[in-house]
Amino acid sequence: MSEVEDTIKRLNLHKGVIGTIVVNTEGIPIRTTMDNSTTVQYCGSLHRLLMLARHTIRDIDPQNELTFLRVRSRKHEIMIAPDKEYFLVVIQTSSE
Amino acid sequence: MSEVEDTIKRLNLHKGVIGTIVVNTEGIPIRTTMDNSTTVQYCGSLHRLLMLARHTIRDIDPQNELTFLRVRSRKHEIMIAPDKEYFLVVIQTSSE
Repeated sequence: MSEVEDTIKRLNLHKGVIGTIVVNTEGIPIRTTMDNSTTVQYCGSLHRLLMLARHTIRDIDPQNELTFLRVRSRKHEIMIAPDKEYFLVVIQTSSE
Repeated sequence: MSEVEDTIKRLNLHKGVIGTIVVNTEGIPIRTTMDNSTTVQYCGSLHRLLMLARHTIRDIDPQNELTFLRVRSRKHEIMIAPDKEYFLVVIQTSSE
């Protein structure tokens, strides 16, 4: 099993994790543990948010760089770890 | 001293906190512990990011609501707590 598959499997076993998605820099899902329509819905919205978060950090300080984004809501928590060629999204139930 | 002033003072005493800003729903700073130009710079960018984060959560699930946003970068961590009439921004050094 590839290292990516292994990592996704392990993440998904964590208590409360609803889904894990690996998204390329264009916002296209390349791995997911969720159904297709939910995956596509998350990817589109989160890609825009991640791009704006990146630009926001660069606007404030061009020498700085976004390393992690955590979006908490009443129902769940979305964690986004950006990397050069993809970003990893983990959705878990919110501890609200 | 008003409760808001007291809260801002206490937040600002936390180790690593660089600044605290209270921003109204139009993105205008109404209290800040930072200098004016830094405050205005943060407010403009973060207001857009917060609005998009709110819409993102609503797009995915209209019954859901954004409760907290944490934007971590190499140099610092920005925490945004949205409320009905304002949002609170706390900037602290990143534990990277």
